[in-house]
Amino acid sequence: YSSGYGAAPAANDPMWGYFTAIAGQDGEVDAEELQRCLTQAGFTGTYSPFSLDTCRIMIAMLDRDFTGKMGFNEFKELFTALNGWKQNFMMFDQDRSGSIEPHELTQAIAAMGYRISPQALNAIIKRYNKGGRIYFDDYVACSVKLRAVSDNFRQRDTMQQGSVTFQYDDFIQCTMSI
Amino acid sequence: YSSGYGAAPAANDPMWGYFTAIAGQDGEVDAEELQRCLTQAGFTGTYSPFSLDTCRIMIAMLDRDFTGKMGFNEFKELFTALNGWKQNFMMFDQDRSGSIEPHELTQAIAAMGYRISPQALNAIIKRYNKGGRIYFDDYVACSVKLRAVSDNFRQRDTMQQGSVTFQYDDFIQCTMSI
Ligand SMILES: [Ca+2]
Ligand SMILES: [Ca+2]
Ligand SMILES: [Ca+2]
Repeated sequence: YSSGYGAAPAANDPMWGYFTAIAGQDGEVDAEELQRCLTQAGFTGTYSPFSLDTCRIMIAMLDRDFTGKMGFNEFKELFTALNGWKQNFMMFDQDRSGSIEPHELTQAIAAMGYRISPQALNAIIKRYNKGGRIYFDDYVACSVKLRAVSDNFRQRDTMQQGSVTFQYDDFIQCTMSI
Repeated sequence: YSSGYGAAPAANDPMWGYFTAIAGQDGEVDAEELQRCLTQAGFTGTYSPFSLDTCRIMIAMLDRDFTGKMGFNEFKELFTALNGWKQNFMMFDQDRSGSIEPHELTQAIAAMGYRISPQALNAIIKRYNKGGRIYFDDYVACSVKLRAVSDNFRQRDTMQQGSVTFQYDDFIQCTMSI
């Protein structure tokens, strides 16, 4: 009866019809479909729509079977995460200009519960700023990646010692897919 | 007298004037300047110009002091790498359509000298394809990242054992900046 994880059967879920309309014939959502769906749903509001690249990163984060597409449970998981990140961003972008300052990104990352050194934060800011500011699209790409990278690390840190030994090939797979 | 690395003083280098014109007042090249320069120089030829995101990744690869900008030696190093990747890409893109097939990306990566498992290659293809093909811009972003990720790994694999132990913070810094 259960569809796994103790959730209700997908067909009874109010989001199911929405998902199937977006996913099309193959029953899964790819980057182009995700971009179209988030744009049409007005998710970004007055902010610029997500770039295709950010959509690909979002899918890569959840795409545990490496099909490059999202099933229903992954789709719902992404929406939950996106809503959280958007609320977090708007808390700092009080003038609704669509961008925040580097020190606000630092605060946002701390608010997400990550404990990261100033040096690593500096590297993140350098990577995700445009002209000294962090735009919503890049903020989401950064949040998605930070979560995926941390998940990858945590999965391998089975003893919770804060350190992981990577083989080269595993390191490549882990870093190149996100 | 020497400008380091045994190279000739920068002012005598034929590319110096070109570099200073692009770099502007701060004497370093950022992502916007790099994009403009590669577009105006016609580097991509009939291929689509590089996205700003790919330019940022290119700079991040070489930006060892995390300023988000490139000095003269880094600029020259990037041009050398770019020329190699372009030649490599054109070898596979024989009809000059601007894109190659997944199995050709696999061959191109092997031609660059990387030894990567089919599973990791699959993850790379899933990340960098658009509609089942790999475009020049994404091919360059992939090549840049593969090189940076491999460099990061090799620097830490001092015993050349093919495995590296990462602390969480170092892993974040290493993966988030590229
Ligand atoms: Ca689909
Ligand atoms: Ca703002
Ligand atoms: Ca400059």
